Amino acid sequence: MKISIQKRILDANDQAAAANAAFFTQRKILCLNMISSPGSGKTTILSRTIEGLKDRVRIGVIEGDLKTDLDAQRIRRTGAPAIQIETSGACHLTALQVSAAVKELPTDSLDVIVIENVGNLVCPSAFELGESARVVVLSTAEGDDKPVKYPGTFAKASIVLINKIDLLGHVDFDVAKVQRDAKVLNPNVKIFAVSARTGEGLPDWYDYLVSLRGPRG
Amino acid sequence: MKISIQKRILDANDQAAAANAAFFTQRKILCLNMISSPGSGKTTILSRTIEGLKDRVRIGVIEGDLKTDLDAQRIRRTGAPAIQIETSGACHLTALQVSAAVKELPTDSLDVIVIENVGNLVCPSAFELGESARVVVLSTAEGDDKPVKYPGTFAKASIVLINKIDLLGHVDFDVAKVQRDAKVLNPNVKIFAVSARTGEGLPDWYDYLVSLRGPRG
Repeated sequence: MKISIQKRILDANDQAAAANAAFFTQRKILCLNMISSPGSGKTTILSRTIEGLKDRVRIGVIEGDLKTDLDAQRIRRTGAPAIQIETSGACHLTALQVSAAVKELPTDSLDVIVIENVGNLVCPSAFELGESARVVVLSTAEGDDKPVKYPGTFAKASIVLINKIDLLGHVDFDVAKVQRDAKVLNPNVKIFAVSARTGEGLPDWYDYLVSLRGPRG
Repeated sequence: MKISIQKRILDANDQAAAANAAFFTQRKILCLNMISSPGSGKTTILSRTIEGLKDRVRIGVIEGDLKTDLDAQRIRRTGAPAIQIETSGACHLTALQVSAAVKELPTDSLDVIVIENVGNLVCPSAFELGESARVVVLSTAEGDDKPVKYPGTFAKASIVLINKIDLLGHVDFDVAKVQRDAKVLNPNVKIFAVSARTGEGLPDWYDYLVSLRGPRG
């Protein structure tokens, strides 16, 4: 009973996700779904990415949080439009929530929409939102065992951002091990080691994001 | 429909949790349910706590992970008994899983059972396991906005361990702010600032744990 209900919820979600994907394709918008543990640095990466790419790519943001619009406020300080979804306790975003939020964004003037999912390395992974690519952020402070302990999440990631490399030396974290383990789960994954605090490694990520978006239509 | 099904699942869980709680009370076992984001340092805190208290308290462990028994292996290296529950993708432990795991522990020779929940700051919070107290671990690397962003989880915590204080100075984290925000959500919360890496702050936590357990019956 539980499983069949869950399947029905997923089916409804998948339909909404397909509609979102069709909308993004038609508008030539690249949509990224960012997933991570709480506090891995998603919002800081995003703020810096918006500023670093402000002359090349117009980015809009959808923020998912259980509570508060703190993250949307942080994004708006960069000048980018941001819509906050408060999930009222739910542990992931759904495609329907994203459809509603997209309607509030100025999509005619956007090249990229980044969805910052609820801070949770497990549940968001099961819900397609219609994204063009999925980005998993892993902070060095979380430890290098996360790909093997959360294989479902990493297997679906097209991109892994290893963040907080400024803490290497203060934490036990083997970058090469994470690269190896993530590639076992998805041989095509693109991995960038960055510090959203110091900016190290971010230019390569910016260039890759621009290449994913392709030329403006 | 979805809500009523979810409620029924919770009711079944609450019944099993009540049975677990009765078992622990009868055996005078203190049971802690540890909840946190992935990589906050639960297993390291636990390993050090077992070693630090080895002459005062006999601790057994139930480990919850989506995949792998890496954490149970780490705990067993301390000499303590540890049972691994692999949830096969589920984002939280249930009281029934705990009931089954408890049967595999040598409960006659234990004073304390620590349940290390799946690394997830959201979902485990909704499932009572029959614990005597709930411990939320927050690493300084995760940022000091977590109590306000995850209020449901922090409101149910009797104890908050702020871990990785050795990283203060390398990360933006205001310990006093977290203490204030956690106390707004639960005025009776006990908060310890510790480093499982250096050992700083752990003795106060050890003493408090012993005081919670009370004298051996």
